[in-house]
Amino acid sequence: MTTVADSVSTANNIRDIALACRDAGTAIAALPTSAKRAALDAMAAALDAQAEAILAANAHDVAGATAKGQTAALVDRLRLDRARLDAMIAGLRYVATLPDPVGQITRRDVRPNGLIVERERIPLGLVAMIYEARPNVTADAAALCFYAGNAVLLRGGSEAIQSNRAIAGALRDALRGAGLPEAAITLVEDLRHETMMTLLQLNDIVDLAIPRGGPGLIRFVAEHARVPVIKHYQGVCHLYVDASADIDLALRLLIDGKTTRPAVCNALETLLVHAAIAPVFLPRAAAELTQRGVQLRGCERSRALVPAMQKASEDDYAAEYLDLILAVRIVDNPDEAIAHIRRYGSDHTEVIATRDETIAARFVHALRSAVVMVNASSRFSDGGELGLGAEIGISTTRLHAYGPMGAEALTIERFVVRGEGQVRHASSMLS
Amino acid sequence: MTTVADSVSTANNIRDIALACRDAGTAIAALPTSAKRAALDAMAAALDAQAEAILAANAHDVAGATAKGQTAALVDRLRLDRARLDAMIAGLRYVATLPDPVGQITRRDVRPNGLIVERERIPLGLVAMIYEARPNVTADAAALCFYAGNAVLLRGGSEAIQSNRAIAGALRDALRGAGLPEAAITLVEDLRHETMMTLLQLNDIVDLAIPRGGPGLIRFVAEHARVPVIKHYQGVCHLYVDASADIDLALRLLIDGKTTRPAVCNALETLLVHAAIAPVFLPRAAAELTQRGVQLRGCERSRALVPAMQKASEDDYAAEYLDLILAVRIVDNPDEAIAHIRRYGSDHTEVIATRDETIAARFVHALRSAVVMVNASSRFSDGGELGLGAEIGISTTRLHAYGPMGAEALTIERFVVRGEGQVRHASSMLS
Repeated sequence: MTTVADSVSTANNIRDIALACRDAGTAIAALPTSAKRAALDAMAAALDAQAEAILAANAHDVAGATAKGQTAALVDRLRLDRARLDAMIAGLRYVATLPDPVGQITRRDVRPNGLIVERERIPLGLVAMIYEARPNVTADAAALCFYAGNAVLLRGGSEAIQSNRAIAGALRDALRGAGLPEAAITLVEDLRHETMMTLLQLNDIVDLAIPRGGPGLIRFVAEHARVPVIKHYQGVCHLYVDASADIDLALRLLIDGKTTRPAVCNALETLLVHAAIAPVFLPRAAAELTQRGVQLRGCERSRALVPAMQKASEDDYAAEYLDLILAVRIVDNPDEAIAHIRRYGSDHTEVIATRDETIAARFVHALRSAVVMVNASSRFSDGGELGLGAEIGISTTRLHAYGPMGAEALTIERFVVRGEGQVRHASSMLS
Repeated sequence: MTTVADSVSTANNIRDIALACRDAGTAIAALPTSAKRAALDAMAAALDAQAEAILAANAHDVAGATAKGQTAALVDRLRLDRARLDAMIAGLRYVATLPDPVGQITRRDVRPNGLIVERERIPLGLVAMIYEARPNVTADAAALCFYAGNAVLLRGGSEAIQSNRAIAGALRDALRGAGLPEAAITLVEDLRHETMMTLLQLNDIVDLAIPRGGPGLIRFVAEHARVPVIKHYQGVCHLYVDASADIDLALRLLIDGKTTRPAVCNALETLLVHAAIAPVFLPRAAAELTQRGVQLRGCERSRALVPAMQKASEDDYAAEYLDLILAVRIVDNPDEAIAHIRRYGSDHTEVIATRDETIAARFVHALRSAVVMVNASSRFSDGGELGLGAEIGISTTRLHAYGPMGAEALTIERFVVRGEGQVRHASSMLS
């Protein structure tokens, strides 16, 4: 059996590795849906069969990270157990049930001259996924890229290298078992800085780089890449409670958005409250949040209503806390809320609570964020929740895909034109 | 009256200019279709009213380019006359008749929990158009970007600076007359190299850069940009004449593709002919092309059939001649044609002439080019011809837009979600 390490040693630089990966993608791009589904099921079975080795490899990574004094949060993101592995396996099987975007005809038009013009979805080509400590990204990203007909280069963090090697090895075993080129799923094992820099320059080979991780990683990739990049940057998500809001509804959105999973990008970071409703809403909100362990940081007017609240600084309004902290501000009208979001937001997800449809429409229309919600929790800003099936991340780049990205966002529409010999100039007719 | 030069002098660096342009775009993004149409008509009227000044400015540019010894081709691209100006004016009025992409709801889904999930087109934001000698791009790009709700930075070539200033000045007069912020259409008049470099780094302000011009310009932008780039690179377009082709049909496609406008990107550069049809097809093709002034460069087998043909080098197969020259190669089957196109092509436009639908499907499926034509001329690879109305260029970047780009490609889909207080976790319900 060829192991991942063996196959990597035959290609001794990242350009060769990327070329081999891209070339393997040609075979994946041409696969019928049934073959891709069978391969995904085989990948799931391989992860299950190699569970013991994967968990052992992960235990090494966890021990290493702990010994290095990494934070508890990082070690938690890194750790796999049987339940998390089962979730990865279920994820692969789930992707296999999604509609296949490749080959979809999205539009069809017959031109006056009889030309039939179709738009057809084809794979992007080679996707480079650049991520940090979560080893589940290795399987999740590989599955979505593969199903959308792409080759994928997986460049995870050094803390997770043993886990990623074991997971990618199992996925490649499944590819090989299905008679497919295993290089279509390639783990980059050379984690040197200069290798990453070279990878990010390969704009003749890599069609898209998707960085997922902390702001440092995203900024590094955005600064150094010559390949196209879709950033999955931070979510400074806002809830604006209008004067017209149903107070109980707004409280539920606030509690759900702030407290149920504060460490994720679709959690709320800032609460904006209309001055007319603040005297009723804010004290109740503060009570509900405080009993759930949330610390509030507010403007002077908020603090007049909730004296226990700390004072918010400018930095608080720009912060993605990812923690049980909430910035609060009272505004005098919806336009002030909109202006605040435009100034401090990250274009990720914003929510309005209102019973006034005109104000809701104005809020939606005035904001350019990837996801705007009316009377629904920011926590629904997620590919699965919004009907994409699975997601490879949430784009904050206003190009190609904006907001949650599913398999379809890993394809591109091209033109297929059918004619009967039409030419543009009559002079081309034969005499 | 404020002139363009005045308004530029108030913002003395490119970052401030870009920020002012982007901020002006906020007002454009919110305009109803009727207001955008009226503004485009006003821009057309302003070009017409200022025709004399525009043509005089252009005469200065032409004189300058001629004095500098620029090529006849460049001077021709640079030159405006009344007919070309009228075409620009008609183009503005035509864009105003297109469907408005902004605000279109492209998909709607009701989730099991009752959430209504819509995808809505919104403007990209700020588009930087980077181009060379053609002054008509100033009006064409401004019109499409404006209609799609975007602000646009226009950075044309130094040869065309007087023409561009006059054209952009007229467009901005019309914006101001309509009560709109004229900075939404901004000509970059500082043409220094370091200013362009700085512009290409403004990834917090510029949402998309579109370089249009020669390979040198495209490569420069691709290498130095930290802003997202969609390249409009070269078209090494192929016609493959299969053994099953209708010979007269294939000849028409060849003549139209090669001879009617050889200097454009959708002109044919290489002819691939199946060996079984070559003895009949190639001599006729050579006769038709030669009498139209085309020089042929072929493989040994082609030259055996058409002895007058020059010998083709490897470079010939990769060349975008943009001239009356055609590379020729005989292949033994469709797969060889596909392999040739994959190796030498630029993913722009490829054509097959065949009467066999299975072979046509195989050709389409195996190629990843932006436009693939069956029995139709490559010259139809154009936004207008394919039904987009107008085009801002033809993307050879497999991200966001691939192939001809119209107004829709200057927008992005985002999510708008409407609920009735749905939350993700039951624990968020109030007690």
